[in-house]
Amino acid sequence: MNDADDPVAFHDALAAHGLILPTGVPGGYGRGAVFEDILQRFNELVSREAADDGAESLTFPPVVARGLIEKVGYLDNFPQLAGSVHSFFGGEAEAKALSARVQAGERWEDLLDITGVMLTPAACYPVYPLFSGRLRPGGRLVSVLNWVYRHEPSAEPTRLQSFRMREFVRVASTDEVVAWRDAWLERAMQLLQSLELPVASDVAADPFFGRGGRFLAASQREQRLKFEILVPIVSQQKPTAICSFNWHQDHFSSVFGIRTAGGEMASTACLGFGLERVTLALLRHHGLDPLQWPAGVRQLLWPDPATPRPSARCPTTS
Amino acid sequence: MNDADDPVAFHDALAAHGLILPTGVPGGYGRGAVFEDILQRFNELVSREAADDGAESLTFPPVVARGLIEKVGYLDNFPQLAGSVHSFFGGEAEAKALSARVQAGERWEDLLDITGVMLTPAACYPVYPLFSGRLRPGGRLVSVLNWVYRHEPSAEPTRLQSFRMREFVRVASTDEVVAWRDAWLERAMQLLQSLELPVASDVAADPFFGRGGRFLAASQREQRLKFEILVPIVSQQKPTAICSFNWHQDHFSSVFGIRTAGGEMASTACLGFGLERVTLALLRHHGLDPLQWPAGVRQLLWPDPATPRPSARCPTTS
Repeated sequence: MNDADDPVAFHDALAAHGLILPTGVPGGYGRGAVFEDILQRFNELVSREAADDGAESLTFPPVVARGLIEKVGYLDNFPQLAGSVHSFFGGEAEAKALSARVQAGERWEDLLDITGVMLTPAACYPVYPLFSGRLRPGGRLVSVLNWVYRHEPSAEPTRLQSFRMREFVRVASTDEVVAWRDAWLERAMQLLQSLELPVASDVAADPFFGRGGRFLAASQREQRLKFEILVPIVSQQKPTAICSFNWHQDHFSSVFGIRTAGGEMASTACLGFGLERVTLALLRHHGLDPLQWPAGVRQLLWPDPATPRPSARCPTTS
Repeated sequence: MNDADDPVAFHDALAAHGLILPTGVPGGYGRGAVFEDILQRFNELVSREAADDGAESLTFPPVVARGLIEKVGYLDNFPQLAGSVHSFFGGEAEAKALSARVQAGERWEDLLDITGVMLTPAACYPVYPLFSGRLRPGGRLVSVLNWVYRHEPSAEPTRLQSFRMREFVRVASTDEVVAWRDAWLERAMQLLQSLELPVASDVAADPFFGRGGRFLAASQREQRLKFEILVPIVSQQKPTAICSFNWHQDHFSSVFGIRTAGGEMASTACLGFGLERVTLALLRHHGLDPLQWPAGVRQLLWPDPATPRPSARCPTTS
C-alpha cells in the first residue's frame, strides 16, 4: 500500500482495471470476474479452515420477515440502516396513476404499501428463529453466506449498501459460546495473517443510532461484546473492519425462546467475514493483478494448479 | 413423479427432509445444504456447457438504481411485482416515534422515505446500461447470477419472492442475437434432457399487469419474443417454467443508446435458468435423496468422484 490515503483514487483504479463496475448507485457497484474470483476463493479458504467443525450450511434469501426485524429490536437501534420493501397493491386506475407519475418524473412511491419483508441486515438473523425451543447437547453451529443491506450510500469503495457476509453462528451455553468466539478470534487472525494482511484486532461497537446509541455503544465496549479485525484499506489512520465477532448474550435467545439442553437460556454469538472488504484489502496490499501476488498468498487462494485462472481467462469490461 | 398434484404436500416433504426451511415468509424459505448443493452443481454444469462461449462473468448486488427501474418501463408493466427499498432519514425525535410505534405493534413505515435503490427484478437489468455507446464487432456476451425479487407471496414451493437466476445476456445485431437465442433454446433443452427431466418448450408471455397487459402479452406471443422451457413440478396440467428466453428487440438498446459496431441500433436478448426451480424439478422427478438419483444424472452434476457429498456429510436441521 504505497499510495497516500485516497479512497476516490482507489475506487477509480479498481474501476479502470475492470475489478469493479460503477452502476450509478453509491456503494452498489458491480464486481468483475477477477474481483469475484478472489472473493469466492477467500470464501473457499474459510470453508477449508472450518471443514472439520461440522457446521450446518444454510442459505437464506436476502429478504427476511418484517416481523423478525421488528422483534429483534433492529428498528430501535439501527433505523438509519434498515431497508423496508414496498410494493404496489392497487388496481387498474391506480396502476395508470403510478405509470403517469413515473413518466412525468414525479415521485410515485406513496402509491405503494408495505410487503411482508425487509432486506436482511445481517446474514445470521434468519438463523435464530429456527432454534426456538430446547437445543440438543452441545448446541448448534451454522454457516451462512448472504447479501446484506445497509442504507449508508457512500463513494468509499469499502462502504457498500449491499455486500456479502460469510458468517458462522453458534447457539449454545454461555461458556461454549464464549470459548468458541475466543478460539475463532485467534483463528481468524491467523487466517488473515497467512494472507499477508497487516491485521490487528480490537474491541468495537455497533453503529447504534443517536444519543441513546452512544450509551449502548459504550456499554457494548465495556462488556467486550464485539471485536473486530481491522486492516488499513482506504486509510492508514482509520483501518477498516474486515471481520467481526459479536456475542449477543441472551438477546436473540430470549426473543426466540432458545434454551440449552439443560433448560437454561441459551447464549448466541456470530462471526462474519466481510467478503468484499477482504477482497479489497487483498487488492490494496498485494496489487490490482492477482497474478502478481506473493506466491504464498496465491497458493492459499488458488491451491489447485489445474484450475483455470479467471484473471487470465475472462475478459473484463474495462 | 408418482404423487397426485399437491403443492402443499410437496412443500411439506421438502421441509421434512431439511431440503427447505420454513421462515414464516411465503416464498421466502431457507435452503438446506443438500438443496443448495444441487443448485450449485446445476449452475456449475451450465458453466461447463458455456465454457467455450467466452462470456464475461459479472456480479451485481441484489439492488439496482431506482432510476434504472423507472427508465426501462418496469413500473408500467409489472408494478405488482416491484420491490422498492425505503429507509429512515429522521433525527432523534422521529427515531423515538418510530421505535414507540414498533413496540406498540403499530404501522411505522410512513416514517420512512425512499432510498436510491429497488430490488433487482431480473438478473440481466444491471448489464444493459454498461453498454451505452457503440459495441465492438460481434457485440457482447455476459454471464450473471443474482437474487431477484418478485412480490408474489405464495405457499407454492416453486413460486418464490426471492430466488436466483443464472442468466446469459447477448447484446449485438438483431441477426446475431436471434441466432444466439435460437441456438441456446436447443442447447438448454438438451442440457435439461440430459438430466432426465421431461421438458417441453413453448412460446410464452410475461405477466404484464392489468387489461393493457393482456394486449401486450398477446403481442409478445404473436411476435414469438419469449420462449420457456417447462417441466411438471407441482402440477401435471400446468408445468412450471424453469428456463426462459427473452428477445427484447431494441427495448433496452433504445433506452440506453446501445449501437452495433456498424452504428445501427443494437438488439438484446437474455436467457435465464431459474436455479431453485431446476433444483425442485430434479427433486420432484428423481426423489428427495440425491444419493438415489439415476447414475447418469449424478455423473453430470457430481462429475468429480473425489468431491465430498454434502448429502452424506452435512447434517440438516430436520
